Amino acid sequence: MKSFEFLSIRYNFENNKLEILDQRKLPDIEEWLVCSKPSDTIVYIKQLSVRGAPLIGIAASMSLYQYVRAENPNVDQIIHVSKELREARPTAVNLMYAMDEMIQVHLVEDHLTRDFSHENLGKLAWKIIDQEVQMCDQMSKWGATLIQNGENILTHCNTGSVATVGMGTALGVIREAHKQGKNIHVYVDETRPLLQGGRLTTYELQREGIPYTLICDNMAATLMRDGKIQRVLVGADRIAQNGDFANKIGTYSVAVLAHFHNIPFHCVAPLSTVDLNCQSGKDIPIEERNPQEVQGASGAFGQVRWAPKESKTFNPAFDVTPNNIITSIILDSGIYNQEQLKSLELLKLKKK
Amino acid sequence: MKSFEFLSIRYNFENNKLEILDQRKLPDIEEWLVCSKPSDTIVYIKQLSVRGAPLIGIAASMSLYQYVRAENPNVDQIIHVSKELREARPTAVNLMYAMDEMIQVHLVEDHLTRDFSHENLGKLAWKIIDQEVQMCDQMSKWGATLIQNGENILTHCNTGSVATVGMGTALGVIREAHKQGKNIHVYVDETRPLLQGGRLTTYELQREGIPYTLICDNMAATLMRDGKIQRVLVGADRIAQNGDFANKIGTYSVAVLAHFHNIPFHCVAPLSTVDLNCQSGKDIPIEERNPQEVQGASGAFGQVRWAPKESKTFNPAFDVTPNNIITSIILDSGIYNQEQLKSLELLKLKKK
Repeated sequence: MKSFEFLSIRYNFENNKLEILDQRKLPDIEEWLVCSKPSDTIVYIKQLSVRGAPLIGIAASMSLYQYVRAENPNVDQIIHVSKELREARPTAVNLMYAMDEMIQVHLVEDHLTRDFSHENLGKLAWKIIDQEVQMCDQMSKWGATLIQNGENILTHCNTGSVATVGMGTALGVIREAHKQGKNIHVYVDETRPLLQGGRLTTYELQREGIPYTLICDNMAATLMRDGKIQRVLVGADRIAQNGDFANKIGTYSVAVLAHFHNIPFHCVAPLSTVDLNCQSGKDIPIEERNPQEVQGASGAFGQVRWAPKESKTFNPAFDVTPNNIITSIILDSGIYNQEQLKSLELLKLKKK
Repeated sequence: MKSFEFLSIRYNFENNKLEILDQRKLPDIEEWLVCSKPSDTIVYIKQLSVRGAPLIGIAASMSLYQYVRAENPNVDQIIHVSKELREARPTAVNLMYAMDEMIQVHLVEDHLTRDFSHENLGKLAWKIIDQEVQMCDQMSKWGATLIQNGENILTHCNTGSVATVGMGTALGVIREAHKQGKNIHVYVDETRPLLQGGRLTTYELQREGIPYTLICDNMAATLMRDGKIQRVLVGADRIAQNGDFANKIGTYSVAVLAHFHNIPFHCVAPLSTVDLNCQSGKDIPIEERNPQEVQGASGAFGQVRWAPKESKTFNPAFDVTPNNIITSIILDSGIYNQEQLKSLELLKLKKK
């Protein structure tokens, strides 16, 4: 292990100090929260100060490593703490995966001896971080090959660095194209109800000097009609074998609008997002969230409500975009067009 | 003149008391503001306590009538006050029209004698109110003939009674269908950035017991794909000769989505909305509003901001929906389908 500083998490090896950026206060306040022990990290995950699947896994892994280095606990204590961290967000697949790596579940299954020294746990935690960085780099490089100089790119939700330690997925492509000197401009969907575009994507673009314009989700169509959007880039939460994919609510709406206006539409996500348990989008379950989110908004200012408090709402977390309106899916392993998706190229890739 | 009470304006003839509902405080607080003199009304219009083109015209007309009845001013004073009222919202066409009616401009043009008695001004103000009520009734009845029992209807923005003295336009059709006992349910687009759907349409539907579900603007597409929306009804701010029309930002987005999913899409507006100066949508100017609206939200709670305060925004007040993705336009004079719109039926109608 060594010292590192990413956008939302940093670690000082000298004094074993782990800190995470409080995402609830962005974009106005950059406040670092100190994780002195795993129970701090659990609180931060639960109160949504840390969000984004990759980042949660990494924060938990680093927290476990830090604890072992500081306290020198026995194996039972380590496993107990890993379980507590795991339960901070039971639905986060990356968190499960990260904790499995840290407690070396594959060795248990093979009846091999595990190594719980802080040196080894440090190596395992760094491996998780490094994989994340590599995957984002690869997707970003593939994606950037598509971007032409002077393009206006629409993106939805936040797929950038606040939720990970890498460059991001869709926003990674945008970053890479900007780094390559392509003169791009980004239209940012605010992404109701949780406003990840308005709060976080704007924050990241502002910070890096990438030109952007914030819009409400219902404004993209008129920009497309006026020829002001040349490409759409979004992320994915889960991809089915046939290329149908689930992503933040509003993605399907953008996909239909892009299709109608003949604008290329790409989904950017790591191969790990492809779920072999889903043959098509129909197999992806959609969680419905609480009415307060639609009745108003939350941010650094607290919570406000503008709709009647008795109002019934519909609040799906995700929607599903079918393969027949996708131009391509950009994975860390390459770019897959609609024909490849329809001929189940992702299934073959995943089975390799 | 006689006493009346509509949803957003009421008048007591006995004591010459005029009151308007403070729309800024809806839906949580129903607070009536007393208009004792024209300068009160001007303040209420400027601070957006009164909004909606028809209502502004009516509030100003009633305020002028009330003033004349209370103060018995001379003609110069009356004309002076009518000018002050007119300037409260210089872009409101209905306000101009109402003030022209009240000061009897057509008589001046024909060199005829005007009658500024409070009795006559009361008759003129009531005529404006009555025309509004009649027009809404007619549109609503035409529109309701299309609605089938059991339909789920999507609507955008607020086209109801808070902005007028009638039943409303698109919401008038919904009201009429509900009144006729058709078992309908309404999906309400919250309508960012000003949230007229989330704040006002919900308030009206809640008040009248019409079943509804509030959604964010980016959620309509997934409902359409799942077969949960059978019809879309919206209003119009301005209609061109060929049936292209401007309406609240987000309307064009809904129109494209409805077109893609083969869902009937109707615009409901009075014939007075047809503007012979516009041959097509290209001739309709689109005002851009201030960035604060997109950077956050306002309501009874005040104003909040969640985006970086330096963020650049795009904030058009309206967008234009072209005639080729409209099922029909419902006017007070009847229903006009796409073929009729394309063969300039509205132009012929208006020239009659």
